[in-house]
Amino acid sequence: MSPIHISIVGVGKIVRDQHLPAIAKNSDYTLIAAASRHGVVDGIDNFKSIEAMLEAVPAIDAVSLCMPPQFRYAAARTALEAGKHVFLEKPPGATLSEVADLQALADKKGLSLFASWHSRYAPAVEAAKAFLASTKINDVKVIWKEDVRHWHPNQDWIWAAGGLGVFDPGINALSIVTHILPNPLFITSATLEFPENRDAPIAASIVFSDANNLPVSAEFDWRQTGHQSWDIVAETDAGMMVLSEGGAKLSIDGKLVHDEPEQEYPALYARFAEIVKAKKSDVDLAPLRHVADAFMLGRRKFVDAFFD
Amino acid sequence: MSPIHISIVGVGKIVRDQHLPAIAKNSDYTLIAAASRHGVVDGIDNFKSIEAMLEAVPAIDAVSLCMPPQFRYAAARTALEAGKHVFLEKPPGATLSEVADLQALADKKGLSLFASWHSRYAPAVEAAKAFLASTKINDVKVIWKEDVRHWHPNQDWIWAAGGLGVFDPGINALSIVTHILPNPLFITSATLEFPENRDAPIAASIVFSDANNLPVSAEFDWRQTGHQSWDIVAETDAGMMVLSEGGAKLSIDGKLVHDEPEQEYPALYARFAEIVKAKKSDVDLAPLRHVADAFMLGRRKFVDAFFD
Repeated sequence: MSPIHISIVGVGKIVRDQHLPAIAKNSDYTLIAAASRHGVVDGIDNFKSIEAMLEAVPAIDAVSLCMPPQFRYAAARTALEAGKHVFLEKPPGATLSEVADLQALADKKGLSLFASWHSRYAPAVEAAKAFLASTKINDVKVIWKEDVRHWHPNQDWIWAAGGLGVFDPGINALSIVTHILPNPLFITSATLEFPENRDAPIAASIVFSDANNLPVSAEFDWRQTGHQSWDIVAETDAGMMVLSEGGAKLSIDGKLVHDEPEQEYPALYARFAEIVKAKKSDVDLAPLRHVADAFMLGRRKFVDAFFD
Repeated sequence: MSPIHISIVGVGKIVRDQHLPAIAKNSDYTLIAAASRHGVVDGIDNFKSIEAMLEAVPAIDAVSLCMPPQFRYAAARTALEAGKHVFLEKPPGATLSEVADLQALADKKGLSLFASWHSRYAPAVEAAKAFLASTKINDVKVIWKEDVRHWHPNQDWIWAAGGLGVFDPGINALSIVTHILPNPLFITSATLEFPENRDAPIAASIVFSDANNLPVSAEFDWRQTGHQSWDIVAETDAGMMVLSEGGAKLSIDGKLVHDEPEQEYPALYARFAEIVKAKKSDVDLAPLRHVADAFMLGRRKFVDAFFD
């Protein structure tokens, strides 16, 4: 099979840091064009809009959509209508309903739609899942605390309504827990802390359960300075499991069993090539559904204004 | 087929006003028990909990769950685990994820789960759907404005986080528009007005679109005194369609074409008997998904405190 002619829309930091290197080293792809209002990718044709790009470069097979989620639906629909496979950065859209609509269109057109959840491809995630399947889980705590000023400096879109706030990193944790736990979760209560000058939460505290009343809690906080925490801790009959550093490191009962550098975006692009070849889609809405549920069910609390 | 032995859980105003009369006049049902913390149904066995009822009355085939949505999941799971069909009052649950979980359990057990949307059974809804399918729609406005003090006096659960506030009636409008419009909708922006002393919105203003960029807007307001509005107005190439009084009355291009008394709950129970006999479920999550999307995407605005 000849390489997938791929293009990128929305050239920002995540594209330069992750997408371009991952595509460059995967022989399943040739990057042939990019579209972005501001950014450019050196050495290929660049356009100001996806419409202009698709019209000028008919050889494009697939597009990777990396703009903020509020603008993803229209671009995805344009790409699917033009017969292109679509890779959606996370979260896959601004609403559950628009992603369901895109899925229906992709199915109708026989195209692949990929809702990418990069954290599921962290090195120790599969080992954690296998361990949890082998024992009885008694309690799960998710601690996702980072410094928003360091990771998202002056990114106003992330604070706008629909920008998700602390759920932008938090959805990474949700993409892991929904993948490694044996039963589907659902939220029973939540508190969302909104800075009084912002339309998205800076912190969230969530209580989940499942069919067997497993207690699962999550603490998301964007005000953490110093040590950054991206941990999932499970108390089990076989000891305490700690999946830390966003899924890179796994220890069980005090013993480090996995510690590898992450290769998430290379794994995402390998998966996308796989589903394009297999002519199928991969769109798990569970992480975004939990976020929507948290906003619907959660109590709102107002906290100090946030300034970058 | 012998009648379905049905029981009711959560005996409140809606049960007395709607469920009991609808069940009484449908020969597909025999009401044999009820469970409720406070209410009782005369002439049948009454229990304090669903567990006590299911244990004492093994002949129960189906349960109708009418407690507030925050308490519905556990009862539904208990009923399904005990092999009973389940009728869920609207909204079907406090979160999308828990309803998805119940659906998976019902499928596994070969039982019928019914997410009831009573407004879809209003007399003129099917005629409105048929009309809209016959023409080009240019614009849709949903106006759902009622007096919460009249319709929900002192119902604190409706104002609690997860109680949905004005979306409790608004979801009725959403259940109609998602049924009568030709394409799936998705929300592009929303503003939710929260009384400063309450955890649920008293008003919401929502903008939707669809794959063809149809402009659809909805105004939900619980502060309407005097005339109460439950209208869906569509501008079409065949004139203006007004579906009013919650779906009871339809006029097209100024001509009244439908005006009948509502029979929603009798129609719901007819539908439930039909799916029980056909051994299938009927769970459309689209109305609740739009509510969750509105909470996730919507901007929050604070307004005057509300007191009953």
